[in-house]
Amino acid sequence: MTTDCIFCKIVAGEAKAEVVYQDDLVTAFRDTHPVGPTHILIVPNQHITAVSQAEAQHESALGRLFLAARKIAEMEQIQQGGYRLIVNTGPNGGQTVFHLHMHLIGGKRMRYPMG
Amino acid sequence: MTTDCIFCKIVAGEAKAEVVYQDDLVTAFRDTHPVGPTHILIVPNQHITAVSQAEAQHESALGRLFLAARKIAEMEQIQQGGYRLIVNTGPNGGQTVFHLHMHLIGGKRMRYPMG
Repeated sequence: MTTDCIFCKIVAGEAKAEVVYQDDLVTAFRDTHPVGPTHILIVPNQHITAVSQAEAQHESALGRLFLAARKIAEMEQIQQGGYRLIVNTGPNGGQTVFHLHMHLIGGKRMRYPMG
Repeated sequence: MTTDCIFCKIVAGEAKAEVVYQDDLVTAFRDTHPVGPTHILIVPNQHITAVSQAEAQHESALGRLFLAARKIAEMEQIQQGGYRLIVNTGPNGGQTVFHLHMHLIGGKRMRYPMG
């Protein structure tokens, strides 16, 4: 845990969030500024700053993000309608919290073109 | 391999694509309709239709997508500028090829709000 990281604090139960899923590798909670009817953040429990810092040892936790997304989409009943998963890295990506996180957005039609 | 899947054919070297990275679990190639200066698709070598079909056995391959994204971003020299990773699932996500794929988009500022 990085002591000044808000997502590490949420993982540890030391900061308030609406947690919807947690297992040994990842934790998911609702985004406080949702951009769609469903907007959930899924994070590795271990602090990884960004995709640009991901190492081989993180492979399982990073894969688990997708398995958690599938489960949460079923819980949210958006598995049929569909959803978009987004991970931002660095300035052009628009990353604002420096603990790697996957956005799960659904309940509306996503824009095309993407990006 | 699913015989009518274009991405399976690219993985197997049986369909034309500009492959930029390949290892034991994933293959990456340029999107033929790029939405940014860098637009690369990273796919598991094994056929997984969508995130909604991902199983525990796919965890390593799905994690590897991120590790490949990191490597490719370094090759494309967008690791400092940043990038966005997107995986679409189902109609609302806008998924059009039914072999799970991660979009790596960079070289420009991504839109906000996302989705």
